[in-house]
Amino acid sequence: MCEEIRFSTRTIMTPGPVEAHPVVLREMSLEVLGQYDPQFRQIMRRVQKMLKQHFQIPNGHALAVDGSSRAGLEAGMYSLVEKGDKVLIPAYGRFAYLLAEIAERAGAEVILYEKEWDGPFLQESIIDKIKETQPKLVAMVHGETASGQVQELDQIGKYCQENDVLFMVDMVATFGGMPTKVEEWGVDLAVAGTQKCVSVPAGLAFVAWSDRADQIIESRFQKELGLGAEARNERFILSNYLDLSQLKVYWSDTPINHHTEATNLIYAAHAGLRMLLEEGMDNVYYRHKLNEKALIAGLTAMGLKLYGNLETKLPTVNAVLIPKGVDANEVKKFMLDQFGVEIAGSFGPLVGKVLRIGNMGYSSRRENVLHVLGALESTLIRYGAKVNQGDAVQAALNVYLDVQK
Amino acid sequence: MCEEIRFSTRTIMTPGPVEAHPVVLREMSLEVLGQYDPQFRQIMRRVQKMLKQHFQIPNGHALAVDGSSRAGLEAGMYSLVEKGDKVLIPAYGRFAYLLAEIAERAGAEVILYEKEWDGPFLQESIIDKIKETQPKLVAMVHGETASGQVQELDQIGKYCQENDVLFMVDMVATFGGMPTKVEEWGVDLAVAGTQKCVSVPAGLAFVAWSDRADQIIESRFQKELGLGAEARNERFILSNYLDLSQLKVYWSDTPINHHTEATNLIYAAHAGLRMLLEEGMDNVYYRHKLNEKALIAGLTAMGLKLYGNLETKLPTVNAVLIPKGVDANEVKKFMLDQFGVEIAGSFGPLVGKVLRIGNMGYSSRRENVLHVLGALESTLIRYGAKVNQGDAVQAALNVYLDVQK
Repeated sequence: MCEEIRFSTRTIMTPGPVEAHPVVLREMSLEVLGQYDPQFRQIMRRVQKMLKQHFQIPNGHALAVDGSSRAGLEAGMYSLVEKGDKVLIPAYGRFAYLLAEIAERAGAEVILYEKEWDGPFLQESIIDKIKETQPKLVAMVHGETASGQVQELDQIGKYCQENDVLFMVDMVATFGGMPTKVEEWGVDLAVAGTQKCVSVPAGLAFVAWSDRADQIIESRFQKELGLGAEARNERFILSNYLDLSQLKVYWSDTPINHHTEATNLIYAAHAGLRMLLEEGMDNVYYRHKLNEKALIAGLTAMGLKLYGNLETKLPTVNAVLIPKGVDANEVKKFMLDQFGVEIAGSFGPLVGKVLRIGNMGYSSRRENVLHVLGALESTLIRYGAKVNQGDAVQAALNVYLDVQK
Repeated sequence: MCEEIRFSTRTIMTPGPVEAHPVVLREMSLEVLGQYDPQFRQIMRRVQKMLKQHFQIPNGHALAVDGSSRAGLEAGMYSLVEKGDKVLIPAYGRFAYLLAEIAERAGAEVILYEKEWDGPFLQESIIDKIKETQPKLVAMVHGETASGQVQELDQIGKYCQENDVLFMVDMVATFGGMPTKVEEWGVDLAVAGTQKCVSVPAGLAFVAWSDRADQIIESRFQKELGLGAEARNERFILSNYLDLSQLKVYWSDTPINHHTEATNLIYAAHAGLRMLLEEGMDNVYYRHKLNEKALIAGLTAMGLKLYGNLETKLPTVNAVLIPKGVDANEVKKFMLDQFGVEIAGSFGPLVGKVLRIGNMGYSSRRENVLHVLGALESTLIRYGAKVNQGDAVQAALNVYLDVQK
């Protein structure tokens, strides 16, 4: 009962959570500071500033929510949507349905616009759907981890900006792994998490929003009863915990009492965001692209096929079609038990059909790519799949050695 | 922009967050595990088992919610309460109004039963109010941090159990610092946090509930759309993130996909809960009582008075009346800047009237008690208050040296 935690460390090549950066883990274990200690407020301000840099939203707002990524999605949706609001949700993968679930619970009238998961939408097709359905809010996913596909956003955002439609985007799987130009693309509210490309353990969500979204959020402000009854609001946000109008004040220089901030996760976020900036965002994106290239080269050399449209592939996730006759769960379990390598299955129509290999954050490094390819090949051989033996790691090595010439 | 975090560590004597135990900080920085890794599921099971021990709810349910304590309060309230339900909230301090805020946002009809903050309710008075108002749920605070008072619960719980009324209790300020006998007292749903007597950084809430509460929670289960549309439920819980019916399955041996667990906070919670059990709960409670005794002896010897009824004082919080003519904020700031000691102000009618000195978790140790008394005395002298110079620390030392004889 009273034993300490003991476990074998893993090579985590799922689409999140991934390995935390060792420096993040060290800075996370600094001593607790009080949430109103000026020393801590300075750290919060720096996190906020870095979030605005990462989201590329110089004129907007940003903060961290104490909860996993989906807490951020719920904070965003609940803060923007009121009962009866029409919300259009284009779905090309599993996480659109999470947005739909959240919108439904918020009392919205949800219009799902569905397509197969093998690729994203043409932007024009979504714009047409907006014209047809006249929603208050369009909510969609930038990078879909379930299928490993990425959606272009700029034209949709432009249309929304010009036509008084709000645009909310889940950037959990792309933030810190490929560009997320929130302001340039016309996104009103964007959400990301810590446990993917930022290499920080799960537990915080990042939310950024535009001035346009801020007007709605501000207009719904209701301070909690414990701090006075003078700010009652008929249009109050459905959640007190995930209320961006209060969280914004909590994060300001004149904070109200709200939750107790998760100080040590904030330290960790600070370290993760800082190290990405230190590496340089172009270098970070290049690293993810290079490791993706090596992974694809390896998987292809092995004789495997990737799921979905390669033109619109998400660099941070590789959805691999499982060879016939091989059980996805057995492969996953064997790789974990024998090689200490974790990869993932998928969702919905892709269950048992694809395995997903992540390429995110601190896990997106050469040694992990080589290790996962070797482990996968050996495991598939063990389960009787026909693969080109010995070629995968060589193909990946070629990619790496080529750029060193 | 890219600097590492650097700060001076503090002696934190607020009523939370308090200093984390050094062992907690070390175990928190272990490497990330995948949330479905069997190694991690074992840690979750052990946390769950320890939570049931700490809450003393052998036949009930318990888990951790990824969010601060108030996320746990919202999870509990939203999972039990439906639109129009009558909720009775007896209020003898600030945090009852948080429960009211949450209940209101959940659509409940809230009946506030208010009294002065100087002491808790007589249990009979609450039972009478239940008879009069016939609520579905009574929600209240066990230990009120704002005033440093504690409420007896056993008779209220017994009445609720016998009369088909649900009983929800906020145990954030008492859990791990004094007994919290959830099952024996007839509490249906109890909430605690990590950042007080468990000596773990903020970021998780602990929720425990009875079989009776579980029937309601189960009956409202709605699996999210991303996992299939077969479990729609008209009585769905208003939050998807804080939905105990889904979280319960997520924490089970056959988990559904929900949030990404805050793995490292779970490690930290494991360490914090484990170390309390190692110390022995009777020893833990004795330590808090002894340090409270020393604090009270010191404060009284200094010539200060405690706020509220000493018979019903909460051992983990000491609300001290501020000497006339002394500004509470200046005292707080001077103590932080010069001594590195953090204490707290209060809320509502007690703002500017009391300072609160916490006595919680790893911060509840002799050296902290002696340090805070010395720092407070020197600061009050500095600000011209009349105090008995030199007596406070001696009085506290007498308490400690007496028990060592």
